[in-house]
Amino acid sequence: MFKLIEQIRQENPLIHNITSPVVANDVANALLAIGASPMMAVAQEEMADIAHFAQATVLNTGMLTSNTLESMLIIGQAANQNGIPVILDPVGAGATTFRQQAIQKLLTEIDVQLIRGNAGELACLAGVPWQSKGVDAGKGPNSAGAIAQMAARRYQTVVAISGPEDIITDGQRTVRVFNGHPLMTKITGTGCMLSSICGAFLAVDSADLFAGTVAACTVFAVAGELAVQDLEDPGPGYFRPALMNRLYRITVPEIEKYRQIQEEKSHA
Amino acid sequence: MFKLIEQIRQENPLIHNITSPVVANDVANALLAIGASPMMAVAQEEMADIAHFAQATVLNTGMLTSNTLESMLIIGQAANQNGIPVILDPVGAGATTFRQQAIQKLLTEIDVQLIRGNAGELACLAGVPWQSKGVDAGKGPNSAGAIAQMAARRYQTVVAISGPEDIITDGQRTVRVFNGHPLMTKITGTGCMLSSICGAFLAVDSADLFAGTVAACTVFAVAGELAVQDLEDPGPGYFRPALMNRLYRITVPEIEKYRQIQEEKSHA
Amino acid sequence: MFKLIEQIRQENPLIHNITSPVVANDVANALLAIGASPMMAVAQEEMADIAHFAQATVLNTGMLTSNTLESMLIIGQAANQNGIPVILDPVGAGATTFRQQAIQKLLTEIDVQLIRGNAGELACLAGVPWQSKGVDAGKGPNSAGAIAQMAARRYQTVVAISGPEDIITDGQRTVRVFNGHPLMTKITGTGCMLSSICGAFLAVDSADLFAGTVAACTVFAVAGELAVQDLEDPGPGYFRPALMNRLYRITVPEIEKYRQIQEEKSHA
Repeated sequence: MFKLIEQIRQENPLIHNITSPVVANDVANALLAIGASPMMAVAQEEMADIAHFAQATVLNTGMLTSNTLESMLIIGQAANQNGIPVILDPVGAGATTFRQQAIQKLLTEIDVQLIRGNAGELACLAGVPWQSKGVDAGKGPNSAGAIAQMAARRYQTVVAISGPEDIITDGQRTVRVFNGHPLMTKITGTGCMLSSICGAFLAVDSADLFAGTVAACTVFAVAGELAVQDLEDPGPGYFRPALMNRLYRITVPEIEKYRQIQEEKSHA
Repeated sequence: MFKLIEQIRQENPLIHNITSPVVANDVANALLAIGASPMMAVAQEEMADIAHFAQATVLNTGMLTSNTLESMLIIGQAANQNGIPVILDPVGAGATTFRQQAIQKLLTEIDVQLIRGNAGELACLAGVPWQSKGVDAGKGPNSAGAIAQMAARRYQTVVAISGPEDIITDGQRTVRVFNGHPLMTKITGTGCMLSSICGAFLAVDSADLFAGTVAACTVFAVAGELAVQDLEDPGPGYFRPALMNRLYRITVPEIEKYRQIQEEKSHA
Repeated sequence: MFKLIEQIRQENPLIHNITSPVVANDVANALLAIGASPMMAVAQEEMADIAHFAQATVLNTGMLTSNTLESMLIIGQAANQNGIPVILDPVGAGATTFRQQAIQKLLTEIDVQLIRGNAGELACLAGVPWQSKGVDAGKGPNSAGAIAQMAARRYQTVVAISGPEDIITDGQRTVRVFNGHPLMTKITGTGCMLSSICGAFLAVDSADLFAGTVAACTVFAVAGELAVQDLEDPGPGYFRPALMNRLYRITVPEIEKYRQIQEEKSHA
């Protein structure tokens, strides 16, 4: 499953992203580092064209506007027609009515293959109570695992919840990834980078979306862990370049050596 | 006064920013580094919602458009109603007629608690002659101190002018901060980062806006100075990550040790 | 010719850019590093004003929208009237019909002094077959040198094609720059940075646009090469800050020492 990273490096899949200006540079650089080819177009006029050659499209609602929502709807539907994976990163899902309605519209009009977000965002999508705060994770009565299951079943898609541990589920199978480091939450855009890296993994092998997502989350979390170990001065400033270097260089044996993942029985 | 940084780290205030795509990533990372929680939404449809949970809003006119101006007016007025601080960073105030009129509109329709900019931008707002050049500081016949006083009285707000020395005034009290380093002007976005950091300081204690602004300017300038000392190869490339690390780690004793600030009698 | 960099550092020319949010921060920082003064305004309402004080304008079609296209048309025409250089970076020229038509419109309505892009983008503009892939260079039957010549003659402008070697031609004279390093393609925005750096060179001496472009391409490629040498851990993460530092510090003797450039006879 981790060999997908070698396939990304050989095939350089073109990953289209509609994402926030806050993180667009980080996302593009993370995709380049991992071996993919980023494209960040937003104009509605070119979305249908792009769906003809992109190998995945990643829709990120950070800094969403009515214009970018329209572009997301166009490329999402075109991607569905062309059979390329659609990844949704529902940034700030519960923060405002506008964003909540926009994300519902995306999920109604597009067949999404993967939703990746934090527990608060997925709780909002699953329709369970949660105390969120802006774009942060927040907290609530249901476990992240239960929320992931509910969201996966409700939207018939793979769900990945990032947090102290990552939870990936397709509603039946569930895997937890225990890798990662708290410093990953001290820079903006790590979640957004991961969503787009998931896009690269799903682009090269869409046969098993669940396994591809587990691989992407594991690679990213292990790279983050190793990046922290590389730092003489462990702070957020140097963590970003260190992370890019690790994404660029990480090998399958390293991933196999450091991964801490665990498969659960289904709660069904 | 410098203990406010500990309060920021404990309370993680949510700071909303409408800012330029050029600096949005730097601003978000600087806020995370200092312990705050950034949100960068721009859609007009969600501005009112955000004013209900944001603890300050920072309006930055770099790359202003008629759309973002409208969003600024909505959230600025909502912030006034909800009693949360509004910080204005009038980037390029004097550069074009569009920007000058837009900023006047913001100052007319919103009650702003702090204006932070360079001497040329504040000269424009104060209505005094100044030779500016695009978004750079430029030069003019009035001292930065006099300009700051004039602007503070005209708009009944705290004013912070950044430059070789920072000047903070509420029209009565004036403090100069002598910390900082020329390398801070060799990367884009240091002024924008400071405006948003001021937002974090005003969010945790709005009782004394003047003291909070002095604290924010001092912390940022001291962090910049210490960041330069950390560099083996002092250039702008590595200055940015070094600055983020220092913002992340700076302590009250460090600030107390290195601060060079001076209170002046009022010119009134 | 390389002394232009000293002139940039003395005169700090103000370079206006309409560019993608993905690379706006990198472009602004690269311009600051080289000694220029960046301005990134996009609002249609202020384009005419900016053409009065900007010393060059760089139009980059990455993430183009119908709004930014309109702004480009306004400032391009105003720049032509005011006699300031217009640089076009036709990002993704052949990728979509929208972008292809937009770029043709720019080239029809604006007199462009320099087009800088990759071989695939210039092949599209020259009207020759090419197999491109999104915003990447791709491949085709004509040599990059032939494409550069064709595009330069068709649009009566200087053309710079970036690639394993850079090719600069005005349709008569042709120079190849062999400096650079593959790591420059592993971060986003190096091409965009170079386009804007070309803007800075053309701003300080518009007498010989061809020579200025050769100088800009050489300086950037040599800085990239030296930046790689500075890295203990050669990966894309630390390459970006290292490149900024080299742009900031590079000297004329260094450029003279490391440049590998070669003038060709015209193919005419």
